[in-house]
Amino acid sequence: MYRFDLDHVCSQTGARAGRLQLTHGEVATPIFMPVGTQATVKGLQPRDVAETGAQILLANTYHLMLRPGAERIQAAGGLHRFMAWDKPVLTDSGGFQVYSLAKIRKVTDDGAVFQSHLDGSRHVLDAERAVALQEAFGSDILMAFDQCPPATADAREIGRACRRTTAWLDRCLAARKRQDQCALYGIVQGGIDLGLRSAHVAEICARGGCEGFAIGGLSVGESCDQMWQTCAHTARQMPADKARYLMGVGSPEDLVHCIGYGVDQFDCVMPSRNARHGIVFTHDGRLSIKNRRFFDDDGPLDPDCTCTVCLTFSRSYLRHLFVAGELLAATLLTKHNLSFYLELVGSARRAILADGYGDWAATMLGRLASKRWAA
Amino acid sequence: MYRFDLDHVCSQTGARAGRLQLTHGEVATPIFMPVGTQATVKGLQPRDVAETGAQILLANTYHLMLRPGAERIQAAGGLHRFMAWDKPVLTDSGGFQVYSLAKIRKVTDDGAVFQSHLDGSRHVLDAERAVALQEAFGSDILMAFDQCPPATADAREIGRACRRTTAWLDRCLAARKRQDQCALYGIVQGGIDLGLRSAHVAEICARGGCEGFAIGGLSVGESCDQMWQTCAHTARQMPADKARYLMGVGSPEDLVHCIGYGVDQFDCVMPSRNARHGIVFTHDGRLSIKNRRFFDDDGPLDPDCTCTVCLTFSRSYLRHLFVAGELLAATLLTKHNLSFYLELVGSARRAILADGYGDWAATMLGRLASKRWAA
Repeated sequence: MYRFDLDHVCSQTGARAGRLQLTHGEVATPIFMPVGTQATVKGLQPRDVAETGAQILLANTYHLMLRPGAERIQAAGGLHRFMAWDKPVLTDSGGFQVYSLAKIRKVTDDGAVFQSHLDGSRHVLDAERAVALQEAFGSDILMAFDQCPPATADAREIGRACRRTTAWLDRCLAARKRQDQCALYGIVQGGIDLGLRSAHVAEICARGGCEGFAIGGLSVGESCDQMWQTCAHTARQMPADKARYLMGVGSPEDLVHCIGYGVDQFDCVMPSRNARHGIVFTHDGRLSIKNRRFFDDDGPLDPDCTCTVCLTFSRSYLRHLFVAGELLAATLLTKHNLSFYLELVGSARRAILADGYGDWAATMLGRLASKRWAA
Repeated sequence: MYRFDLDHVCSQTGARAGRLQLTHGEVATPIFMPVGTQATVKGLQPRDVAETGAQILLANTYHLMLRPGAERIQAAGGLHRFMAWDKPVLTDSGGFQVYSLAKIRKVTDDGAVFQSHLDGSRHVLDAERAVALQEAFGSDILMAFDQCPPATADAREIGRACRRTTAWLDRCLAARKRQDQCALYGIVQGGIDLGLRSAHVAEICARGGCEGFAIGGLSVGESCDQMWQTCAHTARQMPADKARYLMGVGSPEDLVHCIGYGVDQFDCVMPSRNARHGIVFTHDGRLSIKNRRFFDDDGPLDPDCTCTVCLTFSRSYLRHLFVAGELLAATLLTKHNLSFYLELVGSARRAILADGYGDWAATMLGRLASKRWAA
């Protein structure tokens, strides 16, 4: 089950409000997808995740294929049942983590051979296996197996990654067995070279068998300006009637910019990982809950946030939990940060539907830059 | 506000079913009080704690006086508001942790001078300050400042601790300023010497100004049999019309035994601390979730448990979370273990009201000893 409908395209900016119909439910776009790497959004029960406003999660194929394994998850009734999450799930192909986490790896035109970072065991990951694993998980959206070169890669290396990514996409499309339930997105590479991006976006988006398309290879070390420019350049060449997913991005500011360029889906560890380090996102910029100024601050994390954490707990209490090393600090700060991200994309959607995304984005970027809570 | 009423005393055993009326609500006894040392039950949101069936929490004065401090908690509106827990709270006096955690300490007939285990700062804790701190927290039940000798202490040391504990109780009673809202329990010491226990229980329970009485100085290194014998010996000499609290105890087996001796209140870190180490309590004994046999076990932790964890998640998933080092493992296993303890005391209460506690206890002790899940 897959369907993408546009409700409105903002005339000020090209920002899009749409709806994805997936096997496990509907998702209003633009959307941020919290990261549940090991079949859990770190520190949150599924109902807490749902209360953040999350409509779809991302899980990582690399981690799950190693532990507990796709066979175990399939035998347990699929990823949704295993982790008790009944809304949609998108899984990546595992390729990115093979390149960044695995101990020893060899990547050829065939695919990747690597050693697990957990126990050194040897594994193969290629286009066919990436599709089979994700179909075994029962993901609503599968990502094609791609090659993501580092920001430092030269044009030759990026060009080779593009060629492989295209060839692997064709193999992924041919390997699908559950098209009825699992959508497949192709991935555009090309680094920050706008010429390579133009060539690759044309190649990938010519694959009509893909339900949606993603922009990969960004947020890997380039500057914000380079990322925004490349995203804008690529997104505008992607088919208007298919969903656009910017992988691994980003900060609240990144989301506000890239929604304006017409991106529909985002994922990033930033809100959850930062929460575990005491960094809190608010409408008036970030704050560090460790800061001594919050010792006796009985107000909420963000006065403009209506999440259960802001309605229930004070900065003073949350600082106490964090400083005391209490587990609950990670849980509550993660819940707030994800709620903030989901509220942000929800507000963006309302602004698009009102055809005023450009004005909303300018106001929001101003507030986010206020550094009101800077130490 | 304090009132204790007995609903029934089991004719088989002397086990008691009662009701405590406290400032923040009613508590049905016998009751287990989860430990929220630093103003949080580790890893659980207040609503999770409530869902375990918890009706009253214990918090630790020593930890809270050092961080964030009683003044901060009082300024935040008291401990209940600070931690967003609206049911009753009992606080200990801080003495036990001074003896076990503080770096350098000097204890005289006046009280204790010690250095914080956190930063080495110097603090004084005595009868008057212990009452003032707990009143500042706004606890429903304050514990008197006592001296708890180690299990290895000789009769002379235990005798001195008893004399001090009695004298300090009189000072605590004199120091109270909020009797209307904060009940005070006196503590019986005496080690495992039944003669010393008899003498001290008579002395302490002669203090009519106490709303309830506690048995302290157990579970500090003695054997189970010694603990049960001392508890039984002491409890039967305590006034029938006042609540009896056995401090820092214990295992499910301990609760089943000591409820039979007429104890009404318990607290212990065992269910929460064990959960964080992957040890799960079930009606058929303990299991270690790490055990490989649970890798593909899609059943609940305890088939006879109706907690939300058992209704929602499988052993396989919980093992995966634990093995993968996920925060959520601690949260969910803690929630189950506490639910198990609260279900246990709830079942005990129903058995008492049916006048069949002895039979129920024999059956339960048999099941708990089954070691069905032993590795």
